[in-house]
Amino acid sequence: MTTTLESLHRSRDTITPAMRAAIDRLDPTTRLQAAYHLGWVDADGRPDSGGGKAVRPALALLSAQAAGAGAETGLPGAVAVELVHNFSLLHDDLMDHDQERRHRRTVWAVWGAASAILSGDALLGLSQEVLLDSGLPTAVPAALLLARATRELIRGQVQDLAFEERDDVSVTECLDMAAGKTGALMAASAAIGAVLAGAPADTVAALETYGARVGLAFQLVDDVLGIWGDPAVTGKPVFSDLRAGKKSLPVAYALGRDPSIALIDPADLERRAEAIDRAGGRRWALAEAAGRMSEGEAALAGVELPDPVRAELLALGRFIVDREV
Amino acid sequence: MTTTLESLHRSRDTITPAMRAAIDRLDPTTRLQAAYHLGWVDADGRPDSGGGKAVRPALALLSAQAAGAGAETGLPGAVAVELVHNFSLLHDDLMDHDQERRHRRTVWAVWGAASAILSGDALLGLSQEVLLDSGLPTAVPAALLLARATRELIRGQVQDLAFEERDDVSVTECLDMAAGKTGALMAASAAIGAVLAGAPADTVAALETYGARVGLAFQLVDDVLGIWGDPAVTGKPVFSDLRAGKKSLPVAYALGRDPSIALIDPADLERRAEAIDRAGGRRWALAEAAGRMSEGEAALAGVELPDPVRAELLALGRFIVDREV
Repeated sequence: MTTTLESLHRSRDTITPAMRAAIDRLDPTTRLQAAYHLGWVDADGRPDSGGGKAVRPALALLSAQAAGAGAETGLPGAVAVELVHNFSLLHDDLMDHDQERRHRRTVWAVWGAASAILSGDALLGLSQEVLLDSGLPTAVPAALLLARATRELIRGQVQDLAFEERDDVSVTECLDMAAGKTGALMAASAAIGAVLAGAPADTVAALETYGARVGLAFQLVDDVLGIWGDPAVTGKPVFSDLRAGKKSLPVAYALGRDPSIALIDPADLERRAEAIDRAGGRRWALAEAAGRMSEGEAALAGVELPDPVRAELLALGRFIVDREV
Repeated sequence: MTTTLESLHRSRDTITPAMRAAIDRLDPTTRLQAAYHLGWVDADGRPDSGGGKAVRPALALLSAQAAGAGAETGLPGAVAVELVHNFSLLHDDLMDHDQERRHRRTVWAVWGAASAILSGDALLGLSQEVLLDSGLPTAVPAALLLARATRELIRGQVQDLAFEERDDVSVTECLDMAAGKTGALMAASAAIGAVLAGAPADTVAALETYGARVGLAFQLVDDVLGIWGDPAVTGKPVFSDLRAGKKSLPVAYALGRDPSIALIDPADLERRAEAIDRAGGRRWALAEAAGRMSEGEAALAGVELPDPVRAELLALGRFIVDREV
């Protein structure tokens, strides 16, 4: 695990100044809101030390190294995927009415809905600008990879919201939704450095598959935590995904095995959670996550990569998915 | 005026199939919402015949012709600017709580806030994808031009909302806001075709200035209509901008001349409108619009352009700005 933490720390040291330079392009209001959301400052602009783990940028830097280039070649891609990720968090928190993220109030909860919409828009626009401004001859394929992943991410989010109104969501539909919502950007993160480095198509494809599977496995585990996670660890209320009526993956599986779960009083979260567990929702999701990880690792095994980079990619993938469940 | 209408009709014939092809890339839910917003279908997906005048794509096509290329060279740019414009309308309608646009219910009023957020996001993402997918060697500078204009547009919108809370907005601040909110995308529209065609920098700069001034003049006239426009023509309620507390340009001018206007009961819209008029707000805005148009036309006069293209650009600019006031 030391290796992983090293690659994450190294990546954050590289990423943070580049992220700050990108955010500095924004107007002062949006810059403050973005810096607050990223955990750099509090709501009054005083230095703070928060923020996410920035696993997507770490994948992007390793991805350039996987193609034999230096990490710096992947840097514009690393910044761009982190900007898209945070655009989606800003808009999702608003759409899901989540008042807290990482034990801090969300941007819409502090500044209102319009600020969350506009700051998200600004980060999405900036993601393309940063890539295209890199001056790299491979900027166009990298920007296209990211634009398509963004489209997939939005498709997944559209499905996720639509599923809340339905009780007949199949596991296949739900996996397709998660592949969009979470898999697509993780896949782009794992491939964008290699694209910027001009890697051969089979290397790019293997990295993309690895990222997609890591993303899906992460979502499966995240969905388990969304029902059975410890609020002190997740920073979300207990049974949070059940409160919102989310058709997360364990729920879709359980409803497929035992449709009578839909008849349980939606307010009786504890009984719902028990029934989903009894129908195998938790066990299935964790087994499915392990299976997806194996697929991703197999894809990586199929291409030549520098040995230390391969080890770091594998360790980072495990770190992303292995959480206390 | 016949010339203008011809260039607009011609442009819509060229643009519509390309816009449809772009929108077809989206997931079915977002595709329906975007097609509804664009006036192609009603909320149930049945054919409709609505939609805006699509002046920005017309500018983009003429812009390519200004550089001596065919209109088709400007087409990816025309689609991209129209997508950015519609992204901003979808999000603005939600943030302004406007329930109607062009006498039809807005997307958030029909499908809810999340749908307006996500469909706007999808169009913003798509705008870059369409440009980069064009395969043109000039796609990168064109995409960068658009990304910067999008950033400016968002800055302007951020300021516009912030100004609602203030009574001391200067005319300078307000013009700066309008230059972002409306000028930047019109400037990009007028220049993007030339950029795609690989035009020399002075041609691009003149076209950009022309578009920026047309955009500002349009906003000045639009602000006059937002207070004194006929609801039957504008499709908005009478005094609509005053209802929302918008610091539009005539309001900022009038408050600068007569700060006591701020003391008038905000609910007494008729008295407010009268006081703004008496302080010269309406007259100043129309004179300012005429001045900006002259500046734009002077910029265009400074560069060599094919004569018929110059005539069409001038006629289109006049068409955008000359409305019943």
